[in-house]
Amino acid sequence: MQDAPRPAAHDPAPLTPRVAALPATVPFVGPEAQERARGRPFRARLGANESGFGPAPEAVEAMARAAAEAWAYGDPEMLDLRAAIGARHGLGPEHVVVGEGIDGLLGVSARLFLEPGRAAVTSLGAYPTFNYHVAGVGARLATVPYRDDREDAAALAAAARAEGASLLYFANPDNPMGSVATPAEVSALVDALPPGCLLLLDEAYAEFMDPAALPAVDPAHPRVIRLRTFSKAMGLAGLRVGYALTAPETARAFDRLRNHFGVGRVAQAGALAATAATGWLEDVVARTARARARIAEVAAASGLSALPSATNFVAVDCGADGDLARAVLQELLARDVFARMPGPAPLDRCIRVTAGPDAALDVFEAALPEALAAARRRV
Amino acid sequence: MQDAPRPAAHDPAPLTPRVAALPATVPFVGPEAQERARGRPFRARLGANESGFGPAPEAVEAMARAAAEAWAYGDPEMLDLRAAIGARHGLGPEHVVVGEGIDGLLGVSARLFLEPGRAAVTSLGAYPTFNYHVAGVGARLATVPYRDDREDAAALAAAARAEGASLLYFANPDNPMGSVATPAEVSALVDALPPGCLLLLDEAYAEFMDPAALPAVDPAHPRVIRLRTFSKAMGLAGLRVGYALTAPETARAFDRLRNHFGVGRVAQAGALAATAATGWLEDVVARTARARARIAEVAAASGLSALPSATNFVAVDCGADGDLARAVLQELLARDVFARMPGPAPLDRCIRVTAGPDAALDVFEAALPEALAAARRRV
Repeated sequence: MQDAPRPAAHDPAPLTPRVAALPATVPFVGPEAQERARGRPFRARLGANESGFGPAPEAVEAMARAAAEAWAYGDPEMLDLRAAIGARHGLGPEHVVVGEGIDGLLGVSARLFLEPGRAAVTSLGAYPTFNYHVAGVGARLATVPYRDDREDAAALAAAARAEGASLLYFANPDNPMGSVATPAEVSALVDALPPGCLLLLDEAYAEFMDPAALPAVDPAHPRVIRLRTFSKAMGLAGLRVGYALTAPETARAFDRLRNHFGVGRVAQAGALAATAATGWLEDVVARTARARARIAEVAAASGLSALPSATNFVAVDCGADGDLARAVLQELLARDVFARMPGPAPLDRCIRVTAGPDAALDVFEAALPEALAAARRRV
Repeated sequence: MQDAPRPAAHDPAPLTPRVAALPATVPFVGPEAQERARGRPFRARLGANESGFGPAPEAVEAMARAAAEAWAYGDPEMLDLRAAIGARHGLGPEHVVVGEGIDGLLGVSARLFLEPGRAAVTSLGAYPTFNYHVAGVGARLATVPYRDDREDAAALAAAARAEGASLLYFANPDNPMGSVATPAEVSALVDALPPGCLLLLDEAYAEFMDPAALPAVDPAHPRVIRLRTFSKAMGLAGLRVGYALTAPETARAFDRLRNHFGVGRVAQAGALAATAATGWLEDVVARTARARARIAEVAAASGLSALPSATNFVAVDCGADGDLARAVLQELLARDVFARMPGPAPLDRCIRVTAGPDAALDVFEAALPEALAAARRRV
């Protein structure tokens, strides 16, 4: 302990030194905050990769029914939900951890495997909430640039080895670019994991992939956690339910730190019904594919190119540098289109647009040519 | 770093030493797990202090409406809900933090203010989830015995001073005994807080108190956090929404670590509607008071005495030691009554029964004499 001045009675309670050193920033500003700042709502909500096609009607009904029973805590073991999720993946419930979204599971994972002196590896420009949780536990974060708009699996494994990393984050399909790794690349990444390093394989968008391209991962592998969510294809971002598929021993470790009652009765009921609604899911995946194609057409009509995407969003290359893309994004926001964009160059030559329903894409289609022209005048 | 053997490729990823030292136990086994073990459901769910009177119809309707919009993330700043909660307490939203139940807020509080080498103080037998989160961050926990079935505020403050504690947990009304501190006792506790120590004042059951007995706490006090919940009087345990009332600077600190999207759209909608349903709340409080009186009558009919309670549960003194009370609890469970009991002596001479609806108390009334007789035969 260093010699700090003794706090006085009127002083705030001292945060831990680690927390005091954290920035007070947040991983994402929500569209609601932007709407409040603008003073008017967006007409097209295409920035958070939500599924505007909505949740399955069965899930809506299940939530409405559960609402009347919301006086009772949910099962903290979430056994019915874990069994249903596991069955969907050919696994027993002992392989499944359910948490408050992938975000919540990333937070617990960081606390299980990281501490000051340990390191994590991710791609520069990948999901910022992972970085947020790494910083929250005081661990070191090393980043690896994208290569050709894809996460560089081999370089990530090499960095994990060089850093002695305890966690490696890899998203497949990736966000924000929408690229997909081949099964062979994922297998090679698993094989190349250095001893002592656990792979967090974020598959939030996996339902949108060609199922034949999904990598096979040994569900008993002691150092791989696959992360899935009800927030994307299942259309339940507003419930906050994510899950991990992993070896039973790794799954049990979450019980040491997680908020055991954090996923309530209403959320469990909605997620359980959504798991069974396979017909709805197929339909959403098909509609999302059509929406992706439409975004590419809209981009092409303005002379822009859409990157291939295995997700429910499309990265649209604005054809120049980050200054132009940022200006396009601002002009879209000014035209009531909520979208986002990657952070670092050269990814930041793109804007990222969610593959949403036609009504929202109509607004985007009308706004993009104007936004692009206005942006080009500014930059 | 000590010289640990290098992990091999087939070994699990090493937990942090702190996590590895944690027990794999959970703070509470849920009634659902007990039902699975028993092979049949409980007929009276009176163990978790849920409000069997249910949530307000307005809240149920709001959740059902929000279910159809569950495809969209909730506002991560939760401004509408924080403003409504604040208004209820005469405060601006900058004083309000919303989280995944009081449990979730306790977890973030522990991570904000505790680390290895720091200490927390609580009462022996108080809410175990606080202790769970203290252990989770590797801090030291000092406990102070109850005195006359009440938390001993003066001894807690003295222990906080002696331990150099960073957090002091105090519940008012208290759980599991149902006692209430006077406003003067709470004021004295706040005044006696040693510098550098923050008071977590858990008021989960405050709506059941005589409003005149609620302590006044300066909302700008830099070292007090009042914790409230929608899980008890509001009848929304299955939503998992709790909140903290505190100084704006302290409130902002939560943004450094919390799961920003952890309270979703459906939960925010339900809680917002519940906040407005003041008529329903008054009715629930009145019905709960009648249920408390009935539990006391049922206890008296078996020659047992109920402790005074300012909550939605009643500690029933079984008239002997912990062995008898534990046997009574087991015999109640065997008769399909889910209840719980305090852990340490002499609190463990009591069982704890939720002040629920008549149908549940009918089952309890029928079961108690038999359970007591059976327990007396066993002990």
